[in-house]
Amino acid sequence: MTLKLVIGNKNYSSWSLRPWLALKAFDIPFEEATVSLGAADFKEQVRAHSPAGRVPVLLDGPAVVWESIAILEHLAERFPGKAVWPADPVARAHARSLATEMHGGFGALRSVAPMNLWRPIETRELPEAALKDVRALERRWSEARARFGQGDGQAGPFLYGAFSGADAMYAPVATRIRTYGIEVGPVALAYVDAIHAHSAFVEWKTLALAESEVLPEDEVDWPVVKRV
Amino acid sequence: MTLKLVIGNKNYSSWSLRPWLALKAFDIPFEEATVSLGAADFKEQVRAHSPAGRVPVLLDGPAVVWESIAILEHLAERFPGKAVWPADPVARAHARSLATEMHGGFGALRSVAPMNLWRPIETRELPEAALKDVRALERRWSEARARFGQGDGQAGPFLYGAFSGADAMYAPVATRIRTYGIEVGPVALAYVDAIHAHSAFVEWKTLALAESEVLPEDEVDWPVVKRV
Repeated sequence: MTLKLVIGNKNYSSWSLRPWLALKAFDIPFEEATVSLGAADFKEQVRAHSPAGRVPVLLDGPAVVWESIAILEHLAERFPGKAVWPADPVARAHARSLATEMHGGFGALRSVAPMNLWRPIETRELPEAALKDVRALERRWSEARARFGQGDGQAGPFLYGAFSGADAMYAPVATRIRTYGIEVGPVALAYVDAIHAHSAFVEWKTLALAESEVLPEDEVDWPVVKRV
Repeated sequence: MTLKLVIGNKNYSSWSLRPWLALKAFDIPFEEATVSLGAADFKEQVRAHSPAGRVPVLLDGPAVVWESIAILEHLAERFPGKAVWPADPVARAHARSLATEMHGGFGALRSVAPMNLWRPIETRELPEAALKDVRALERRWSEARARFGQGDGQAGPFLYGAFSGADAMYAPVATRIRTYGIEVGPVALAYVDAIHAHSAFVEWKTLALAESEVLPEDEVDWPVVKRV
């Protein structure tokens, strides 16, 4: 039975991007269904699939998985031939920890710099707490790249060499760094570029730019000149 | 090589309780090391093990795992004979989702009702946002119990019948419900009781009550009469 992923608007829904990117990057076939984040009955629509009423939701036959990390772990288990996590146990432990840290952390940065792929690139002053998050991100990325970036003979520009579930988790942050002109060092900058150059991300962004719904809070956030 | 778990004070550290409980409940041998949450150099002490500078941290030979969910997934993979997650794939997907939801969610309840095993049981008025969290918890627990509580022929009082990683994640919330006299329905109440009756939890609580360090913020929180 084909997997089905329920997601929100591609322009805004950073949580939706994560599992979508993993599915595409690992070449796992799936159908998708979109529920508009602006729909008055958004929660009710999503609750038809998942009790939490939030996107993303993965439907795998009778199994329902919500929360991005849980979806990644589900995929890792269901498709053992796909390297959702690095093969080396030490790298894998690190990748799982880093991915999970993204799930609950970096809140100051997330709240002040939401993912918004339409937004013209423009520098935004960040409060100290968000800058602290950026510095922590840079430390984590640099450590992963330095220790595990050569992969298991699978060198690549991602955190653990080849693209992994950890990159799926951090991809939205990479877009924030670019969108809001956040200054980072060369390692982080190269990583942000690598995410933007990944074919699965390019596909997502193209689809995001083709969307037409502008959320009300976004109209407040920046002068709405949809960037196409 | 024996696993080693680095944790904070047992009275306060809800995040530490989670993997500790899993290790004990699944009878996985481990050593433990405690870093006092009140230590001036807490972060530095923890950073000797993990880049995040937060507890818990699991050391498994050269592999370092931080973040409670990542530790649970690491244990599930490392000890396939232990049922960290339910065996049935549909129940397992549900358990993973629920466990991960705890990792990033229920923030209103968590912030207003911190785990504190010493605290005399006393009802605390909760703001609406925290009450909403409690109602969501009750819905999740009830759904898990109703759909999966019979386990795979492993009926038991926990979310998926026998004790699982999801129970390890929700155990601290069960203590909060009791400590702050939060009113819940019969299903949730029975679940809170089941957590408190689990031998691993009893062991943790006994050790917590034997601790002597009272954190400064705790002295503000309630009249400090250490309950022994």
